[in-house]
Amino acid sequence: MATLRVPDVEPSPTQDCERLRNAVQGLGTDERAIIWILGRRNASQRGKIRETYLQLYKESLIDRLHSELSGDFRKAVILWTYDPPERDAKLANEALKSKKKGAKELQVIVEIACANSPHHLQAVRQAYCSLFDCSLEEAITSVVSLPHKKLLVGIVSSYRYDKELVDMNIASLEAAKLHEAIKRKQLDHDDIVYILSTRNVYQLRATFKCYQQKFGNPIDQDIKSCGKGELESLLEVVIWCIQSPEKHFAKVIGTAVIGLGTDEDSLTRAIVSRAEIDAMKIRGEYFNLYKTNLDGAVIDDTSGDYRDFLMTLLGARI
Amino acid sequence: MATLRVPDVEPSPTQDCERLRNAVQGLGTDERAIIWILGRRNASQRGKIRETYLQLYKESLIDRLHSELSGDFRKAVILWTYDPPERDAKLANEALKSKKKGAKELQVIVEIACANSPHHLQAVRQAYCSLFDCSLEEAITSVVSLPHKKLLVGIVSSYRYDKELVDMNIASLEAAKLHEAIKRKQLDHDDIVYILSTRNVYQLRATFKCYQQKFGNPIDQDIKSCGKGELESLLEVVIWCIQSPEKHFAKVIGTAVIGLGTDEDSLTRAIVSRAEIDAMKIRGEYFNLYKTNLDGAVIDDTSGDYRDFLMTLLGARI
Repeated sequence: MATLRVPDVEPSPTQDCERLRNAVQGLGTDERAIIWILGRRNASQRGKIRETYLQLYKESLIDRLHSELSGDFRKAVILWTYDPPERDAKLANEALKSKKKGAKELQVIVEIACANSPHHLQAVRQAYCSLFDCSLEEAITSVVSLPHKKLLVGIVSSYRYDKELVDMNIASLEAAKLHEAIKRKQLDHDDIVYILSTRNVYQLRATFKCYQQKFGNPIDQDIKSCGKGELESLLEVVIWCIQSPEKHFAKVIGTAVIGLGTDEDSLTRAIVSRAEIDAMKIRGEYFNLYKTNLDGAVIDDTSGDYRDFLMTLLGARI
Repeated sequence: MATLRVPDVEPSPTQDCERLRNAVQGLGTDERAIIWILGRRNASQRGKIRETYLQLYKESLIDRLHSELSGDFRKAVILWTYDPPERDAKLANEALKSKKKGAKELQVIVEIACANSPHHLQAVRQAYCSLFDCSLEEAITSVVSLPHKKLLVGIVSSYRYDKELVDMNIASLEAAKLHEAIKRKQLDHDDIVYILSTRNVYQLRATFKCYQQKFGNPIDQDIKSCGKGELESLLEVVIWCIQSPEKHFAKVIGTAVIGLGTDEDSLTRAIVSRAEIDAMKIRGEYFNLYKTNLDGAVIDDTSGDYRDFLMTLLGARI
């Protein structure tokens, strides 16, 4: 369930573009209008706005937003304005360009591969080829080293069956295989990679449930007890993204806002990429995890236009 | 370059369907009309014919062809009438159901993954999910054992960059990596699988060329000299399908017709799947390899409607 609120009567892209044009032209920028318009349009409507804007004014809306806005607000508005597969291709590329390539940096790739539909992942791979002149898996192979590489190439290359079909025999058999590999601390074992990157998510959820019933602990807990390494953390993200994307993103937001300082990039990524998917459920999971209110936490940790924009995506009436 | 000859003026699907309906109704079947119509329509035209036939007569054209025709002719016509991604998904599924899963049976999966566009492979993976309620890579993982499994899952999961972009440094570096693994007879080495399943085909052709320049022999020859096992044969098919699909298919046809008896399934598969892609080039490669004429070989080894149909796909005027 999305938090994004789209007007009941779909506004015409031309009208939206004229208002956006007014907001970015002349002295100063009308950030409020930008939030009001873009923050209340779904992916398909934003696509039409991008196209219409280019036709009407012979300039890219995103380039214009880039030159008019600044800081975290700019980052958030621009990420939101991209076509979602293009946005994710860019996020994956940024992660692969980061100096440190630990679980924190690479988790966005896991999110793209495991917390979205197979169709979306495929569209991201297409967008990646168009934007960066190489395939996503090729880029991973070039810059990420083993054992992370093995897991990431496996999951980004998947095209999972997308219907709810579960075979309890497979669940039991593969829970045992996973347990065997985890027991031996072989977290990059072929069995783990094949199971996590080929099975459909419903099957995997059944397998994880079976794992806990058979062996006592949740699988992510057993993985964690193998060590405090980056592979353990990355695998934990894979499990969470498959088992409950909303729980994973609630944790991303929690980690970004709790404690001193704020990790704005992670906060933006979580809200922008889930506002029209499952942010309503993330709100519930956030409360379960932290016994406090997600909206309150976002309001406390952000300010100005950036705050207004995130809150608009979370469904608030600014 | 295709051999398929499509009429200059596109016939209406309704007219085609009416003629096909006449050909299959009443006593006897007019095989000639079926060959004349279906054998001279491209994939998009055949798609329209399938749809129109279903609308007009409330029955599937393919089911009707199945009940009217028989033998190798029926197999060929039906494979040709399917949507190409659906056809390949079915061929892959048949291969995975075969008792013996050696290089000969599994090579069709290599062809689908390495001798077609990334877009086609993606469409086959989608069709596989729709038809068989699991992903292609999941099916491979379930029934094929290591080391074949590793190579096959790698190549069918690829979504290669599809433009001609070659980095000679990468070619040199990866030629050396391939050589190192082949020298040690580690044909299922991660390096081999990653390189062959993530790089674009133009890059790989440059890498293979570089391999020969640096180390003396063509890479397929060095692979062969590792042993006579199934993995050697399968890897050879991978190399051929990437390096020159037309040479690979010329060899498939040659192996199917030369000597005693004919392997009709392979002959059909090669001609049906390449008639609208590169059968003209296959004809040239066939001559280079066997110093004899492909069309003559097909005519000698087949008969009746089956022969007429294959020859029609090869551009003959029957």
